[in-house]
Order: sequence, then structure tokens, then C-alpha cells
Amino acid sequence: MAKISWLPIPRGSHFSLSNIPFGIITTASSQSPRPAIAIGNQVLDLAVFSSNDGFSALPSIHPYISVFSQPTLNAFAALGRPVHRSVRDYLQDIFMDDTKHPQILKSNTMLQQIALFPLKDVQTHLPMQIGDYTDFYAGLNHAYNVGVMFRGAANALQPNYMHLPVGYHGRASSVVISGTPIRRPWGQILDPKVPIFTQSKKLDFELELGAFVCSANKMGEPIPINEAESFLFGFVLVNDWSSRDVQAWEYVPLGPFNSKNFGTTISAWIVLTDALEPFLGKGLENKTEIQAYLEEARDENVYDINLEVDLTTKSGTTTITRTSSLNLLWSFPQMLAHHSITGCPMQVGDLLASGTISGTEPGTQGSLLEQSQNGKEALKLQGGDERKFLEDGDMVTIRGVCGVDEDALVGFGECIGRIEPSIKL
Amino acid sequence: MAKISWLPIPRGSHFSLSNIPFGIITTASSQSPRPAIAIGNQVLDLAVFSSNDGFSALPSIHPYISVFSQPTLNAFAALGRPVHRSVRDYLQDIFMDDTKHPQILKSNTMLQQIALFPLKDVQTHLPMQIGDYTDFYAGLNHAYNVGVMFRGAANALQPNYMHLPVGYHGRASSVVISGTPIRRPWGQILDPKVPIFTQSKKLDFELELGAFVCSANKMGEPIPINEAESFLFGFVLVNDWSSRDVQAWEYVPLGPFNSKNFGTTISAWIVLTDALEPFLGKGLENKTEIQAYLEEARDENVYDINLEVDLTTKSGTTTITRTSSLNLLWSFPQMLAHHSITGCPMQVGDLLASGTISGTEPGTQGSLLEQSQNGKEALKLQGGDERKFLEDGDMVTIRGVCGVDEDALVGFGECIGRIEPSIKL
Repeated sequence: MAKISWLPIPRGSHFSLSNIPFGIITTASSQSPRPAIAIGNQVLDLAVFSSNDGFSALPSIHPYISVFSQPTLNAFAALGRPVHRSVRDYLQDIFMDDTKHPQILKSNTMLQQIALFPLKDVQTHLPMQIGDYTDFYAGLNHAYNVGVMFRGAANALQPNYMHLPVGYHGRASSVVISGTPIRRPWGQILDPKVPIFTQSKKLDFELELGAFVCSANKMGEPIPINEAESFLFGFVLVNDWSSRDVQAWEYVPLGPFNSKNFGTTISAWIVLTDALEPFLGKGLENKTEIQAYLEEARDENVYDINLEVDLTTKSGTTTITRTSSLNLLWSFPQMLAHHSITGCPMQVGDLLASGTISGTEPGTQGSLLEQSQNGKEALKLQGGDERKFLEDGDMVTIRGVCGVDEDALVGFGECIGRIEPSIKL
Repeated sequence: MAKISWLPIPRGSHFSLSNIPFGIITTASSQSPRPAIAIGNQVLDLAVFSSNDGFSALPSIHPYISVFSQPTLNAFAALGRPVHRSVRDYLQDIFMDDTKHPQILKSNTMLQQIALFPLKDVQTHLPMQIGDYTDFYAGLNHAYNVGVMFRGAANALQPNYMHLPVGYHGRASSVVISGTPIRRPWGQILDPKVPIFTQSKKLDFELELGAFVCSANKMGEPIPINEAESFLFGFVLVNDWSSRDVQAWEYVPLGPFNSKNFGTTISAWIVLTDALEPFLGKGLENKTEIQAYLEEARDENVYDINLEVDLTTKSGTTTITRTSSLNLLWSFPQMLAHHSITGCPMQVGDLLASGTISGTEPGTQGSLLEQSQNGKEALKLQGGDERKFLEDGDMVTIRGVCGVDEDALVGFGECIGRIEPSIKL
């Protein structure tokens, strides 16, 4: 049953009492980036809350209280999963109608006035300082769909695909917060037999899920698969913008580079790993026998997040994708165990992304590459527009939410980006 | 003619008065990492030097003097090329026999005693906090040699190779300072038709040159080719350790990942771009017409650094590679212009590496993959050992130096790593 708050939380809010996601905000009254949680249509400024004795009834956090006045969540994340859990539990209680500590906030209208802001009035910022960003390719249906397109059904998946979570190192500096405009990149493409220099003509989105790392392993020491989840701080939605024409020309033999490094958008609020725990389910079946270092003790290791993609053009907004993040072959603990099996050092703030998440049916695919069959078929949109790839001014909005009880949803809010015309050179 | 110093600088030193490379040190007396320069067999501690009025005769640096008490060189680098030049010129003068300011150090034995340390007594550390690390593939002979091995001479180079500097995003967290041990990684390899989990059996080095970025471009705004050099702080030697058997199984279609992310070693002293300027030469010829955004105004755009690789095994030390960094098809300004043509944001502290540098003759190749023909032929080493790939305990030492006047060399010192056995799992 849904927890009841003294704070009005609208039915259908992504930020119910069951969620308590963390982000970084600024407000008109203070331009210092600082931690906050989202709750209903409000945010609680944790810098103000903590400096006004908001955590007085949680003594275990007192030695670390300065983490709530940092400009990123790295220091909070580095405290580890048990601390995240106790802080989240505490903040849940503070907002509950039958809170154990009404004097902290429920009956403290003074603190409410200075620490609560309407969500619509705050500016969100990158929640973590990202060291390295790794993008996997764990969406089996996406890999298959793209493989069929370029190599036919018989050879759709590469021989390694079912044996290990294929991934590549992405460009950390290009990760931006939801709402940041994305410029159409220039680049080299084949047209049709010789390379030309042009603005990308096949600009695409990719629907992904991302995880932030909250613990470091020592260089040279792999993270064991059944400890990997304790390294995961929380999750965000990811749009790994892609230039398909640049990619096709550049990617052999070292993989995607310029086709990806012009921008990757993440949602603003990190949903803690604990908040997603109730929504674990079974991912896609892998009949291949996998190596022991990738075998998880648990059977349900992938989250069931309902994902949607809206495409907004001049003619209107169309929901072009509806799918679930169960459409993954590999779990995040598996990605992390594979990534570190070489001893690769993971650091607090590293971002791992899932790769494009697609279902198998029309309308469930997480990229225009799949939906338009690489530009062969135009999508018909609300209001009459058609699209094969993204045009200037188009806006892509990803949403993700867990649960069915409209009063207890655990959601990510939105991950938004609008395409700006290429810069004039 | 070589500049003459009041400080004894041994003939053949990499760190002549013509060099003045920057690094980060700690000493027995102070464990705080801080900037220093190397000169002859000594280092000058810039934290001590600056806090004892060492820069009193360079007023332009006074507003920024705190950069010399930082634990990395990022803040100094961010001041930009003209400041690096004035600080290098000033320090050159301070050490010259006919210095304009003898009272600063030449006749100030007190400051000499507290600011000069024997090179052999200091510990060096990563000189920059590295945001993103990108590895290119600009060594044409290496790309060709490897291509012939796997695809035959007719298809050795991929169609894109002569048109753009192929590269991939590397793992920044795995970049370590010279002297750090490198553990043999575990991973999946094909043996011969099914994947097994094993310690890598084809561990290799890669001889590369690296450049640190000292300026940021705004996201969405490419760096013009003829401004790109002003973004380059200085250069280091790079050993991009590679697991060839892991690479062969994992790299299709997204490129090298675990085969590279277990460690990349860089030399300790950053040779400033200004110090290398006199050694510019012509790189490898490219008869392909390249796009305007990659065309440099200048003809000589690649450094002529004499490079050597020593392999030390139980039986002795053998110089297995002698080549020059002129063996590059693309210059660093070209790499940077290509990398940012999409608007990819470069940041102060980013590391770009050249890719493996090889000549065309036996004994000039920058990897064991080439030298052993992927394990087909064993290299005969001093003292009787043979090697196809690296064994536990083997040490690889890369050296690089410019110039012929033994009193005016501009060198990098050494980039060293020793292979440790795999961790027990």
C-alpha cells in the first residue's frame, strides 16, 4: 500500500514517497549547485535542510554531513550503499504523515519555507562528476534488429554477443543534463562511394538506462559478480545521441567515436538502487552457457521499467516507443563484473549505460535506425509530419517509471533534448 | 649552440636547459604532490621555489602563483600556451650561467638546498588529472603491418584510414605513471573455436606518443585545425598495454575494450609543446586528398623523436625497437581537429595518444604483435631468452629523445612498466 505523506503528492507523480531520487539543483535565490531530492512536485534542498538540523535525528550521518553541501553527489555516493539506504529511509520517514520526527519538517513551517522549492522553479545540473563513461550493447533485440539490417538474419549477432557484455568506452565530457540542446554534428560520411564533409543527415536517439558507480575497486582487482550490485549508486535514463552516417564510415575497426561524442543526455534525478529493488525481474533469456565470472546467484537481475519515447516536431508530439528495460540480455552487475575482470579500476562517478533498449514489435524500438529501417520507411507522426531521422528543432523526450500503483510510482522524470542546427563553419 | 648552466648537467641528459619538462613529485621530506621541473639529474620543486620568491622577477605569473602548489598540473596548463612559454623561458634563464637574475637561485644556496632534489630521490606521480583519454591509430606502418597480418596486403588498410584519424575512446582511470606494475589481465579468449576464461596469453606493449590538452572548446564548437596546436600543453611517452587474445574475441563491432583498459603507462615529465617546436618534421606522406577541416597550413607538423623500446627479461635487456615518431600519418592538431569536428568538448587534462608507432623495417616496430608476427616467430633476446609476447616479470622501457647535440637534448626520460602475474581468482 502506498505510503501517505503530509506533503501533497499528485497521483501519478514519478517522485512518490517510494522513490526519493537525488539530484543537483540551483535556484533563483542561490546559484550554488547543491544536492536535493525530488518529492511530488517539490524538491527538498539538502544543503539548507542539513544546515538547519534536518538530519538531527540521524546521528550516523553527522560525521559526513558536508556531503550535502557539495556541488555533485560524488561524496554522498562514496559513502556507500548502507548510508544511501539509511538516508533514504530517514527522508521517507520525514515526509510520512505519521513521521517519527514531526518537528524536523512536518510541523516546521519555517524550514519548509526555506528548504522546499517547486520542482518547476529549480534548475537541475549533472548530478555526478563523471570520471569515465562506458556504453554497453546489452539490448539484445536492438543488436539483433541492427544486425539483420546490415548482415541478414543468419549473421545478425556477432559470435561474441551471447558470451560477454559487449561495450565500448564513451566520451565522459560529452554527457549533459536533460534539457541541454544538442547540436547536429558535422562529419565525414560516404556519399555514396567517396567521403564528403557534411552536416550529419542521419541523426538518431538511443533509448538507454544508465547506472552510476559509488565504489572503487583497486586497480588489478576484479569486482566479483555477486558484489557488483553494491557498487551501483543509482540509475538514470540515457539518450545516447548517434550520427548513423558518421558511424557507418568511421567505426571499422576501432568502434564508434565521433558518431557518439557530440552529446549524451541523462535525466536529472538519480533513482537509488534500493528504490528499484522491488522492480527486479527476469531479463532476456540467454541459452548460451556463460563463464562463471558472469553468473549471478540471483535469477531476477534486470529492472522492469516502463520506458517511453516521445518525438515532438512542429506538427505535434507522438509517442513512438513503448517498451520495458527487461529487454536486456545482461544486467548491470554483469556489465560491471565484465568491465573489471581485467582489473580495470572503476571510480566513484563512473557512468555505465545499457545500450539501446528495444522490444521485438513495431513501436517498441529504441532508435529511429530500427524504426525507419535505416531510413527506408518514414514514421508517420501526429499532425502529419514524417520522420526517418531527426530534423533540426525536433525534441526527444524519454520517460521511465516503475510500478502500477499511481500513488507509489518510482520514476525517473524526463530525459529531454532538442536538436539545434549545425554550427556554421 | 647548447645553453650553459651553472648547475652541472651531464652530457646526454634528456633534461638539458633546452627542455624544462614539468611533472608532479613527492619527496621523503614532503608527501604533498606538487609541481616540479626536471633539469639534468635534479628537479626543482616549484612549490618551494614559488613560495620563496623564486618567481619574483616574473610579475606576470604572480596572480596565478597558486598553480605551483596544486597536486596536478591542470591549473598551470589551463593558463595557456603564452604563460607556459614565459614560465619556461624564465626558468631556463634562472639556470643559465649568465642568468639575468643570479640572486634568485644561482647565488641563493639557501633556496638551492630546499628546492633542488636529486631526480633519483623523488617520487613522480600522474602529472595531470585526466578527464578523457583518446587513443588514435595514426601510425600508418603499424596499421598496415597489422592489416597485412589479418587481412592480407591488398586489404591491409580499411577504406577510411587515409581519410580521417581513426581513434577510439580509452579508459582514463587506467592511465598510470611510469613505474607502476601492470597485472596480467584475465579475460575471455577463443581457444580455438569456443571462448574460455583465462589469463591473457598474448600480452603486448604499444609504443605511442601522447599529448595533454590545455584549453577547452565550448561544446558544439569545433577546434579549427590551425588553432589546434594552441590547445596542446605538452607531450609524454605512452605504453598502451594490450591483450591481443582478448582483443581478437571482443572487438567486433564496438572496438577494443577490456583488451586495453587494464593499464596504460605514461612517462612522468611533460615536455612542453614549445620545447618540441625545433624538432618538427614531415610525417608520412598521404596522397589521398583530405577534407579541408584536416588540412594544416604548415607542412612540417610531426615531431622527430628518436624512440627506443627495451625489453628486460631474466636473461638481460635487449633494445627491440628503434624508430622515430615521424612515422605518423596524422599530426596531433589533425587528431584534435577531427575529434572536435562534431563539437565534442575537449577539457584541460584530456590525454590524446597517437596509436602505435612503427617503422617499416625489422627492429623498428612498436609492438610484439608485429615483431613476432602474432606469435609465429620468437624474438631472440640478450642472454638467450626468447619472446613472442610478454611473460610475467618482463619489463618494458620506452625512451624518447630529440636532437643530436648531447648538451642540448630534449628528452622524455623513461616510460617503464613490469608485468605482474595475474591475480588469483
